[in-house]
Amino acid sequence: MTTEVKPYVVGIDIGGTNTVFGVVDARGDILGSGSIKTQTYNDLIRYVDELYTELSKLIDSCCGIELIKGIGVGAPNANYYTGNIEDAANLPWKGVIPFAKILSGKFGIPVALTNDANAAAIGEMTYGAARGMKDFIMITLGTGVGSGIVANGQLIYGHDGFAGELGHVIIRRNGRLCGCGNHGCLETYASATGVARTAREYLEKRANEDSLLRKIPVDRITSKDVFDAATAGDPIAKDVFAYTGKILGEAFADFVKFSSPEAIILFGGLAKSGDLLLTPLREAMEKNLMPVFRNKVKILFSEMKDADAALLGASALAWEAK
Amino acid sequence: MTTEVKPYVVGIDIGGTNTVFGVVDARGDILGSGSIKTQTYNDLIRYVDELYTELSKLIDSCCGIELIKGIGVGAPNANYYTGNIEDAANLPWKGVIPFAKILSGKFGIPVALTNDANAAAIGEMTYGAARGMKDFIMITLGTGVGSGIVANGQLIYGHDGFAGELGHVIIRRNGRLCGCGNHGCLETYASATGVARTAREYLEKRANEDSLLRKIPVDRITSKDVFDAATAGDPIAKDVFAYTGKILGEAFADFVKFSSPEAIILFGGLAKSGDLLLTPLREAMEKNLMPVFRNKVKILFSEMKDADAALLGASALAWEAK
Repeated sequence: MTTEVKPYVVGIDIGGTNTVFGVVDARGDILGSGSIKTQTYNDLIRYVDELYTELSKLIDSCCGIELIKGIGVGAPNANYYTGNIEDAANLPWKGVIPFAKILSGKFGIPVALTNDANAAAIGEMTYGAARGMKDFIMITLGTGVGSGIVANGQLIYGHDGFAGELGHVIIRRNGRLCGCGNHGCLETYASATGVARTAREYLEKRANEDSLLRKIPVDRITSKDVFDAATAGDPIAKDVFAYTGKILGEAFADFVKFSSPEAIILFGGLAKSGDLLLTPLREAMEKNLMPVFRNKVKILFSEMKDADAALLGASALAWEAK
Repeated sequence: MTTEVKPYVVGIDIGGTNTVFGVVDARGDILGSGSIKTQTYNDLIRYVDELYTELSKLIDSCCGIELIKGIGVGAPNANYYTGNIEDAANLPWKGVIPFAKILSGKFGIPVALTNDANAAAIGEMTYGAARGMKDFIMITLGTGVGSGIVANGQLIYGHDGFAGELGHVIIRRNGRLCGCGNHGCLETYASATGVARTAREYLEKRANEDSLLRKIPVDRITSKDVFDAATAGDPIAKDVFAYTGKILGEAFADFVKFSSPEAIILFGGLAKSGDLLLTPLREAMEKNLMPVFRNKVKILFSEMKDADAALLGASALAWEAK
């Protein structure tokens, strides 16, 4: 046992396409980073070998392994308690992978891992908009809707490591079919794909009304197209955002009744929609709260740069890794 | 500072009608208890004086104040962080009352306070069905629906002390009007009054169908009447419980997505309905969960005796009081 100070951590973000890694200091500055292509490694052993080789080079060039406190990993279906990645649909390796154990064996330093949205929450608490907060909820608005919940200054993992699936809270009973098999999940409305889905519904229902969106083949409309059209003043596109904001606000009101957070922090593509989303969201949230909660909960945007957020989130986990 | 062992705590449960207090040991055995009538003291000072007098007598007869570690108080609208009781509609004193401060000034020992449902959760964790659990949700099914949420072994109070209002999560958008001003809150369906309301609706909708409940004036039907009729095989009464269980199960599925608890523990009159409520509840909960959560969450009944539960819950809070 030594008492040396280890001022750096490593973050690894494992996505279906790329794996991004970097060395990070206590302020959230990235000393150096690199990446490998996740999807080209169907063989886990080869993937880990390549990751080890590339990451070792980076660490040696930055500071040396003796100054690294730990490694934090963000990955889909990653379980904080077990250190396993379990049946991740978007990754090339099937079954249960003891990823934390494999990696700490290779590097000889502690490794912690969790899913992307939890990592984002810890990143925000360590380096971003939630610094100093003990109670907040992180909502990631991407292809799906993810969440990380912090209460009493700690991430809520639940008894099995799977807490915080707020994208699958049912916001419209018997509503839209979700990939999870249920109907009416928040993410079928409030994700980027949910926004496109709402746009298609509105275009069909309001067939006699002109819209900038009609220039795009209906099955190719993206949330970005809807945003651009809304910004240009298109009434249908604006209504799509009003509806999405309302749905999110109604869901947030229920989340507040659960953990009474100081703030709900938005991250991801849709979070860039600004007031188009925020105005109806705030209105619906406040309307659905009891007086004791009203005008108290901040809605904030992530302070992490998109390109770095996943890496920083993963790295933040490493400060507490054991 | 001394290192003496203080083996006892005091619990005080303040209700609108009675205030019950008792001295409790670490196993949850009540050494002695007493009560005063809350509603006869419109003057807070006189109430506190009387409570002090009576409780002091009890303490002296049990063990002496020097063996009491602290006092825990359960009260409506009680805020753990501030130690205040804030605008409690059912208590005779208006405004914000610094109750913990007043009481610790009188007795010279630490006082902690929280609302009834949170106290019930801490009681269950200390002496009851949740011993050894770090993640569970307590649901109290009474006149209203209350909740206490424990994650990572700690009660979730939220940033302002008001977390855990699960009775007001909206389970039917634009549903029944709730006392809180919103529509469709869980407690308008799943409380004792909610059950009676469902019975009245069913009796009206199914006007041609006979029912044991038709012997009771419709505005006097209680959840106990519905339970008795259901137990006797009455189809309408049985359907009321099936509906109530379904609503609760749907709500619980969303709660699981939030904090992934090991168990949800039921307390209060309705919890005694047994399988009448549990069977449809479990079915609806599992149906509304994603596979990762299925067949994992226990639905348990409180292990606290009704008569003692509020007192024990309040007392449990005192072990951590500072």
